[in-house]
Amino acid sequence: MASTTTNLCVIFSLILAVTCVTGIRYQPNWESIDSRPLPAWYDESKIGIFIHWGVFSVPSLLTEWFWHQWITEKNPTAIKFMHDNYKPDWTYQDFAKEFTAELFNPDEWASIFNASGARYIVLTSKHHEGFTNWPSKYSFSWNSMDVGPNRDLVGSLADSIRKNTNIKFGLYHSLFEWYNPLYLQDKSNNFKTNDFVMFKTMPELYEIVNKYKPEVIWSDGDWEAQDVYWNSTKFLAWLYNDSPVKDTVVTNDRWGKGIACHHGGYFTCSDRYNPGVLQKRKWENAMTIDRRSWGFRRDAEISDILSMEELIGTLAETVSCGGNILINVGPTHDGRIVPIFQERLLSLGKWLDVNGEAIYSTVPWHAQNDTEAKHVWYTAKKSVNGGYDVYAIVLQWPNPGDYHLAIPTPMKKTKVHLLGYPNPIKYKQTSPKGITLTVPTIPFNQMPCDYAWVFKMENLA
Amino acid sequence: MASTTTNLCVIFSLILAVTCVTGIRYQPNWESIDSRPLPAWYDESKIGIFIHWGVFSVPSLLTEWFWHQWITEKNPTAIKFMHDNYKPDWTYQDFAKEFTAELFNPDEWASIFNASGARYIVLTSKHHEGFTNWPSKYSFSWNSMDVGPNRDLVGSLADSIRKNTNIKFGLYHSLFEWYNPLYLQDKSNNFKTNDFVMFKTMPELYEIVNKYKPEVIWSDGDWEAQDVYWNSTKFLAWLYNDSPVKDTVVTNDRWGKGIACHHGGYFTCSDRYNPGVLQKRKWENAMTIDRRSWGFRRDAEISDILSMEELIGTLAETVSCGGNILINVGPTHDGRIVPIFQERLLSLGKWLDVNGEAIYSTVPWHAQNDTEAKHVWYTAKKSVNGGYDVYAIVLQWPNPGDYHLAIPTPMKKTKVHLLGYPNPIKYKQTSPKGITLTVPTIPFNQMPCDYAWVFKMENLA
Amino acid sequence: MASTTTNLCVIFSLILAVTCVTGIRYQPNWESIDSRPLPAWYDESKIGIFIHWGVFSVPSLLTEWFWHQWITEKNPTAIKFMHDNYKPDWTYQDFAKEFTAELFNPDEWASIFNASGARYIVLTSKHHEGFTNWPSKYSFSWNSMDVGPNRDLVGSLADSIRKNTNIKFGLYHSLFEWYNPLYLQDKSNNFKTNDFVMFKTMPELYEIVNKYKPEVIWSDGDWEAQDVYWNSTKFLAWLYNDSPVKDTVVTNDRWGKGIACHHGGYFTCSDRYNPGVLQKRKWENAMTIDRRSWGFRRDAEISDILSMEELIGTLAETVSCGGNILINVGPTHDGRIVPIFQERLLSLGKWLDVNGEAIYSTVPWHAQNDTEAKHVWYTAKKSVNGGYDVYAIVLQWPNPGDYHLAIPTPMKKTKVHLLGYPNPIKYKQTSPKGITLTVPTIPFNQMPCDYAWVFKMENLA
Amino acid sequence: MASTTTNLCVIFSLILAVTCVTGIRYQPNWESIDSRPLPAWYDESKIGIFIHWGVFSVPSLLTEWFWHQWITEKNPTAIKFMHDNYKPDWTYQDFAKEFTAELFNPDEWASIFNASGARYIVLTSKHHEGFTNWPSKYSFSWNSMDVGPNRDLVGSLADSIRKNTNIKFGLYHSLFEWYNPLYLQDKSNNFKTNDFVMFKTMPELYEIVNKYKPEVIWSDGDWEAQDVYWNSTKFLAWLYNDSPVKDTVVTNDRWGKGIACHHGGYFTCSDRYNPGVLQKRKWENAMTIDRRSWGFRRDAEISDILSMEELIGTLAETVSCGGNILINVGPTHDGRIVPIFQERLLSLGKWLDVNGEAIYSTVPWHAQNDTEAKHVWYTAKKSVNGGYDVYAIVLQWPNPGDYHLAIPTPMKKTKVHLLGYPNPIKYKQTSPKGITLTVPTIPFNQMPCDYAWVFKMENLA
Repeated sequence: MASTTTNLCVIFSLILAVTCVTGIRYQPNWESIDSRPLPAWYDESKIGIFIHWGVFSVPSLLTEWFWHQWITEKNPTAIKFMHDNYKPDWTYQDFAKEFTAELFNPDEWASIFNASGARYIVLTSKHHEGFTNWPSKYSFSWNSMDVGPNRDLVGSLADSIRKNTNIKFGLYHSLFEWYNPLYLQDKSNNFKTNDFVMFKTMPELYEIVNKYKPEVIWSDGDWEAQDVYWNSTKFLAWLYNDSPVKDTVVTNDRWGKGIACHHGGYFTCSDRYNPGVLQKRKWENAMTIDRRSWGFRRDAEISDILSMEELIGTLAETVSCGGNILINVGPTHDGRIVPIFQERLLSLGKWLDVNGEAIYSTVPWHAQNDTEAKHVWYTAKKSVNGGYDVYAIVLQWPNPGDYHLAIPTPMKKTKVHLLGYPNPIKYKQTSPKGITLTVPTIPFNQMPCDYAWVFKMENLA
Repeated sequence: MASTTTNLCVIFSLILAVTCVTGIRYQPNWESIDSRPLPAWYDESKIGIFIHWGVFSVPSLLTEWFWHQWITEKNPTAIKFMHDNYKPDWTYQDFAKEFTAELFNPDEWASIFNASGARYIVLTSKHHEGFTNWPSKYSFSWNSMDVGPNRDLVGSLADSIRKNTNIKFGLYHSLFEWYNPLYLQDKSNNFKTNDFVMFKTMPELYEIVNKYKPEVIWSDGDWEAQDVYWNSTKFLAWLYNDSPVKDTVVTNDRWGKGIACHHGGYFTCSDRYNPGVLQKRKWENAMTIDRRSWGFRRDAEISDILSMEELIGTLAETVSCGGNILINVGPTHDGRIVPIFQERLLSLGKWLDVNGEAIYSTVPWHAQNDTEAKHVWYTAKKSVNGGYDVYAIVLQWPNPGDYHLAIPTPMKKTKVHLLGYPNPIKYKQTSPKGITLTVPTIPFNQMPCDYAWVFKMENLA
Repeated sequence: MASTTTNLCVIFSLILAVTCVTGIRYQPNWESIDSRPLPAWYDESKIGIFIHWGVFSVPSLLTEWFWHQWITEKNPTAIKFMHDNYKPDWTYQDFAKEFTAELFNPDEWASIFNASGARYIVLTSKHHEGFTNWPSKYSFSWNSMDVGPNRDLVGSLADSIRKNTNIKFGLYHSLFEWYNPLYLQDKSNNFKTNDFVMFKTMPELYEIVNKYKPEVIWSDGDWEAQDVYWNSTKFLAWLYNDSPVKDTVVTNDRWGKGIACHHGGYFTCSDRYNPGVLQKRKWENAMTIDRRSWGFRRDAEISDILSMEELIGTLAETVSCGGNILINVGPTHDGRIVPIFQERLLSLGKWLDVNGEAIYSTVPWHAQNDTEAKHVWYTAKKSVNGGYDVYAIVLQWPNPGDYHLAIPTPMKKTKVHLLGYPNPIKYKQTSPKGITLTVPTIPFNQMPCDYAWVFKMENLA
Repeated sequence: MASTTTNLCVIFSLILAVTCVTGIRYQPNWESIDSRPLPAWYDESKIGIFIHWGVFSVPSLLTEWFWHQWITEKNPTAIKFMHDNYKPDWTYQDFAKEFTAELFNPDEWASIFNASGARYIVLTSKHHEGFTNWPSKYSFSWNSMDVGPNRDLVGSLADSIRKNTNIKFGLYHSLFEWYNPLYLQDKSNNFKTNDFVMFKTMPELYEIVNKYKPEVIWSDGDWEAQDVYWNSTKFLAWLYNDSPVKDTVVTNDRWGKGIACHHGGYFTCSDRYNPGVLQKRKWENAMTIDRRSWGFRRDAEISDILSMEELIGTLAETVSCGGNILINVGPTHDGRIVPIFQERLLSLGKWLDVNGEAIYSTVPWHAQNDTEAKHVWYTAKKSVNGGYDVYAIVLQWPNPGDYHLAIPTPMKKTKVHLLGYPNPIKYKQTSPKGITLTVPTIPFNQMPCDYAWVFKMENLA
C-alpha cells in the first residue's frame, strides 16, 4: 500500500484478509493494536489545536450539530432560525454553497497556531454531516472542491503547516454520517449489513491517510455500532503496519461502541474529558475555547468564551494528570479565526514563552495536587541528578510570605525559582514533609506573567 | 428480488453468479437477451414523450451537455456565459440549488402528455451529470431531495401519470457520469476496475427498477466502455427474469461500446435515428422538438422549434418504417412545459384525433414510399378480409383531380376514404398496377385537419 | 429647454408659470392641448408592440401587478407562492437583484419586432413599482443600472431600434408608484401636497423625454388623482412646444382622474379597449397576446395565448373602427421574447406581407361591418379615381360560390381581388345595393394565407 | 413644527425664510448658532459609543468606505476581492440584500453598551452610501425596510436604549452621498444648484429629528461643499429653536467646508481627534476599537484591536484635555457586536466601576500632564471645600516607594487614596511645590483594577 493510487478491491481484500509476512506486524485485534507503543512526539507535545470546520460553519448557530438539532432534535432555536430566515424547502445541503472560505489564508492560520505554542493540530476532514473538506472520490458533489470553497481545504492547510512550522498535522474523521442513506440502511438492518463502511467511510479513511499522511487520526462518530461493523481493527492494523505514516501516527480510541476509554491509541473517553486524577494510559482532553460549541457559532457572547485563567487552569490540570490538551477553535464560513480566538491563542503562547518548560516534555509527578495548598498542579521532569525537577503551577497568586506546599520535600541540592523571575525563591523544609516557600511581594509591573505562575523546584527528593 | 429493500451484497451476488432454477430464464449473454420477444404494448404505442430534466435545466443554455461543453470542450459560449454571469469559482454543482421546480405540477404534465396522444413517457432519472431525480441511496447530497427541488421528481411524475392516464411510465438512465471520480478512476484504469459500476451506477439502476417499476428502461451513456464493464447482461437477465416489471418492461440497445444497433431490446442506434427504410428489428426514433437540444435551453428561437409539418412528417416516416417516435421536450428549471411545447403536443393530439388509426397499432406495409407520388408514407393493418387496409399519409395536399399512387392496387372490395372527411373518395385502378384517386376540391373551411392527410384504402390486394 | 442638462428649479419654474413668446404655442389647458393635430405617422402605422418589462418579470407570476396582488390585495396565489418559495422577510425589492437580463439582445428584439410588421414600439420605462429601466437621477438605487441588469435598458433598446429599423421608439411611463412613500404621503393628504410629482415623477418624465426622445409617451397610473395634481397640462404644453420631440411625439389620454377617453392625445380609455364601432377621435387598442397579463408570467398555459385567428380578428376590428393596435409581449427576467410570442409576431408579419395594404395607412370606411355577412371588417383607402378602394377583411373563409356583402355597391370600374391570389374575383351587383362575390374553390395548397382573407374592392361608389 | 407630519413645502419655506417671533431664538448664522450653551448632560457624560452599521457591513472588508475604495480609488484589494468572489456586473447595491441583521437584538446591544459605562450612543442613520437605516420617505427602495433587514434599525435601537437604560440616543448623518446622481449633478454644477439638499439630504435630516428625537446629531460628509450649499445654519436654527429636541440636543461641527473645528456645537475637527492639550471649546475624540476601520471588517487581526491599556490611556488623555470620547464599534451584517468588542467594552465598564469618579462629571484641571511623572493625566472636580479634588490617572503602575508628582500641591486637609484600595496613601509635600506619594507594594491579587490606576488627591490647593 505504498502507492497512493488505490483501488477499492485492494482495500477490501485488505479488510477481508491480512496476510502477515515478516517482522513485527500488528494484528487486527485489540490486544495487538493496544500493544503498540505511542510514538513519543505525541506525549511530549502536550498541546494541540482542534479545528472544527464544515458546512455547519455556515448557519454557525447553536453548535456543529446544527443539522441534527434542526431535523432530529427539533430544537426550537434551530427551527425558529430556519423558519425566520430561509424558504420552507431549504435543505442543509443548500448551505454548502455559502461555505465560501474566501478569506481562508492557511499561512495565517499556521502563523497563529505556531504562536500559540501548540505542537500539533487536528482538522475535521469530515464531520457527521458527511461533507468532506477534501475532494473525496467517494463523496462526489458533497465535498469542498465541488460545492462551496472550491478548494482542497485539508490539503491547503497541510501544506501550509508543513511549510511554515514544525507542527504535526492531524485529521479528525467521523465514522458515521447522520443522514447518509447507506448508513441509515445499515442501521435499520441492525448493522448486519455494512455497505456504508465498505463503500464510503473506510475508503475515505484510507484515502486521507494515503493522500495527506496525517500524524493524528482522530476518529469519532463511532458509538452507534460495534467495532466489527466499522472494521476498525483492520484499518488500524493497516495504519500501523503499512500506511505511509505507520511509524509516527497516533490515533485515539473512538473506534466502536464500548471501545472508547478501553482500546485504541490514546484515550479521549468523552468530550472535554478531564478526570482530575492521574490516568494509566495516555489520554487527551479535547476541549473548546467557546464553552458551548466546537463549530463556530455567531451567537457566542463574550461570557461563553473561556477566560485565560480558565484556559491555563485546564491546561495545568490536564498535563499534570498525564493528558494532552486539544484546544478547539471553530473558523468561520469564510475562513477566519476570529480575533477573540486569536487573542486567547496568542496569550497562551506568551504564557508558554515564560512557562513552557513546565508543560512540554514533562511527565506526571507522583502527586498531581497538593494536599494543602489549593489551585496547584504539579508536573515534573527527571532531573540530571536522578531525582525530579517539579513544577508547581499555581493558579491563584498567593499572598506574600509563607506559602506551604505539603507534598514536595526539598533536598539539600534543591533550588526554587519562579519561572520568569530573576531572583531565587527562599524556602525552608517543613517537618515531617513539605516545603514552605517565601513568596516575595513583587510589584505589579514586575510580575513575570499573568493568569498562573510556576514555582520550579529542582532536585526534589 | 421481489422485495424492494435491497442490500448491495445481494445485488452483487446476483451480478457475480446467477443460478437459474426453473422455467424460461434469460441468460446473461446477448444471444439469450436478444431472444426475448418485445412486449406487445410497445410496438402498438408508436408515440412516446421523452423528458430531459436535470441540473442542466438551470443554466439552460446550449444543451443538456452544458457541463461538458463548459469544462471539457471549452465551448466559447459556455465560457463567456459563465464568466459574465457567475463568480469565478462557481461550480456546476452550485447550480443545483436553483433547480427549484416550484411550478412543477405533475398532474398538469400528465394532462398535456395525455392530450398529445403519446402512449408512454421516458423521464431522465439521471443524466450524465450524475444528479439523480430521485432520492438515491447512492448519491447522497447530489439528488433532487437533498438539493434543489426537495422532491422525489421521479416518484411524483410516476404517480401522476399512473393516477391520471393509461400512459406507460419509463425511465432514462445514464450509465456513465462525466465527472464522477470513481468513474474517472475506472476509466484511467482502462476499465479494468469497475468500482463505479459496483458502488454507484448499477445499484442505482436496480434501485429505480425496484422502486418505480418503470416499463421502459432507456439506457444511455454506455459508449466509452464495453458491456462487460457495465455488467449489462447481468442486469438485463435480472430485469427480464426477476424484476417487478419482468413481463412488461422494454429496454433499448445502449448497453456498451458496440452494442447499440446490435443487441438489447429495441434499437435506437443514434440520436434522432431515422433510417427512412424498413428495419428488421423494432426501433425507436428519439428526437427533439427543439432541434438543437434535449434539455430546455433559454436561447432557443422559434426557428429552432420543429414546425408541425416537420413533426408530423417525421412521425409518418418513422412509423412507416417500423419505428416508434420518442418526442423530446425539456422542462424548465422551475418545472414548466413551456407554451411552444404545449402547442406542438396539443396540435399533435388534435391531428391524431382524426388520423390516429393510421398510426397506433399499425404495421409496416410492404412498401413505405410510393414509387411515383412524393411525400407519401404508408402504414397498414390487417383487414378483416385477409388483405390489408393501407394508410397513405400524404404530407403535402395534392392538387384536386387525379392523384396517382403507383404501389397500391385496389380490389373489388376496396373502398377509399380521406380520414375525417365524410364522403368516399372515388378512384380507378390503373394498369398494370396502381390506383388513381380523385382528390376532391375541398373548401378551406371543410378540410378535416392540417399538416398531413391520410387516405385510407380498405381491402387492398 | 433645448439643452438636456436640466435643473429641477428650471423645470419647476416652467411648471409654475409658462411664458409664451411666439408662434403657435400650446397652453397648459385641455382645450389647447386637445387642439393639436396628431402627427400623421401614428395613424398610418396602425400596429405597435407594447413591452412590459420590470422587476415584476422576476416573480413572473399572476401579472405585472404582482407586488400589489401580494401586499395589498392579499391574493392567495401570491401569498402562497411567496410563503412557499421565499424567506419570510423577503421584500419585493429583493427581487430586483434577479432581474438579470443576461440574455437581453436588443438587436434580436429589433429584428423580431421588425419582422412582425409593427411600426412603433412602446417600452415600459417605469411601471407602478417605480423601478426605472434607465439610470434615473431621481431613483437612486432603484433603477436598472444600480440593481439587477446593470444596464440602461431603455437606452439600449432605443439605440437598437433606431440603428436597425424604421420603427418608432416610444415609452410607457407610470405617473404613480404604488408604494413610494412620497406618493403615499400626498395621497394621505388628499393630493393637496404634491411632493411626489415635484421631486420624483415629473422630473423623471422630463428626463426620459430629453434623454431618449421617445415618439410615443404612453402615460399610465394617473387615475387616483386629478390632472392638476400631476401637472399634466404643463408637461404636455412643454412636450408639444419645447421638447426635442415636439413635432413628432404622440401621447395618449391617461393624464388624470376623468381625463382618459376625454382629453390628451389619442384615446386608450381602458385596457384592451376595443369599442367595435367607429370613434370620433383616434384611439388605440392596447392588448396582450397572453390574455391574462402584460408582464411575462411563467404560469401561462397555451390556452392563455391568443390564437392567430384571435389576434388577426382583433387587428381587423380595431383598424376598421379607426384604432391602432398595440400588441403586448412580456419579456422574461433574463431578457428573452419567448418562442410562443416570437411565433405569433412572425405569423402576424407573414400575414401582413400578403394583406398589409388592407391595414397600413388605411382609413375607416363609412361602414365597419356588413349588415349581412358575418365576421367581416372593412377598411378603406381613397382610390385614385375619387371613390374608395375598400378592403373586406373576412375572418372565416366563406363557402365557395355566392358570397353576398350588403354594404359595398360596385361601380362600373369596380374590380375585386383576393389579396395574394392571382385571379380576379367575379362579382355581380345586387339590387338595390350590395355585391355578390363568387368565391372560388381554391385548393388548400393554393390559399394565399391563413387566419383571415381580404377581398379588395377597387373603385367602389 | 411640533407635528411630525411634515410637508416638504413647509420645510422649504422654513429653509428659505425664518420669521422669529418671540423669546431667545437662534438665527441662521454661525455667530448666533455658536452662542448656544451646550446642554450640560453632554460634558458630564464623557463616554459615548459610536456605531457604524450599513450596507458596508456586508462586504465588511477594508473599511466602511469600501464602495469608494472599490469604484473611485480602485483599491487593489477591493478590486481583487470583487473579482474573485462576485459576478462581473455585481453592484454595491446588490450587497443590500445580504444586510440581513437576523441576529440583531437591540436589547442585547443596550445591555452591552450600558455595561460599558457609556452615557450616550451615536448610530449611523445614513452613511455616505446613502442607504438609510430607517424607512426614509426620501430613499424609496434604498433603506433598511425595503431591502435587507426589513426593519427600522434606527427605531428599534432607539426604543431598546430608552426602555432599558438611561443612555442618550444620538444619530450620525452624512450630508453627502458619494454616488447619488442628484448630488453628483449639484457637484458638477459647482454647487450652484442644490437639488440634492432640497429633495434628499435635508428632508431626511428633518425626518430623523422629528421621528426619533435624537439628542446627538453627529453630522458628517460636509467637506466638499460650503455650509450655504447645505443650508446648515437654517437647519441648526430650527433644531435649536423649534425641533422636538431643542432643549437637549447637541451637535458637532461638520456642517460645511471650513466649518469643522470652527463653528457648530462641540468640535470633532478630524477623525480620532486627540489634541493632547486643553481645548477652549468642548470637543470629542471619535475613535475606533479596530484601529483601522469604523465599519466592521472581517479582515481585522487581533493586532488591529486596541488593547485595554491603549483604550484607557486614550480615555484618560481625552477627558483630561476637556474632551468626550466616542468609542466606535462596527456591528456585523447579521447584527452582532463580536466578542472582542464585547470584551473591550465590558472591561472598560469594570474599570469604570472602580475609577468612574475620575471620569464622569469631571472638569479639566489647570494641568493635564505632570511636568515630571510620565504617563499621568489629571482630571478634577470642585471639592466641597472650595478647592479641587484632583485625579491623577496613572497609565503605568509605578514602582513601590516614592512617587513624585510635580504639579499638585497638598494642603493640610489633603487626603490621598488609590481608587478601589482601602488604605489611604501616605504622602509628603515637596518643596517648593509638588507631592510625593508613597506607593505601597500591593500584592498582585489585591490590586484594585488593571490597565490604569487613579490616585485621588482631595482638597488640593
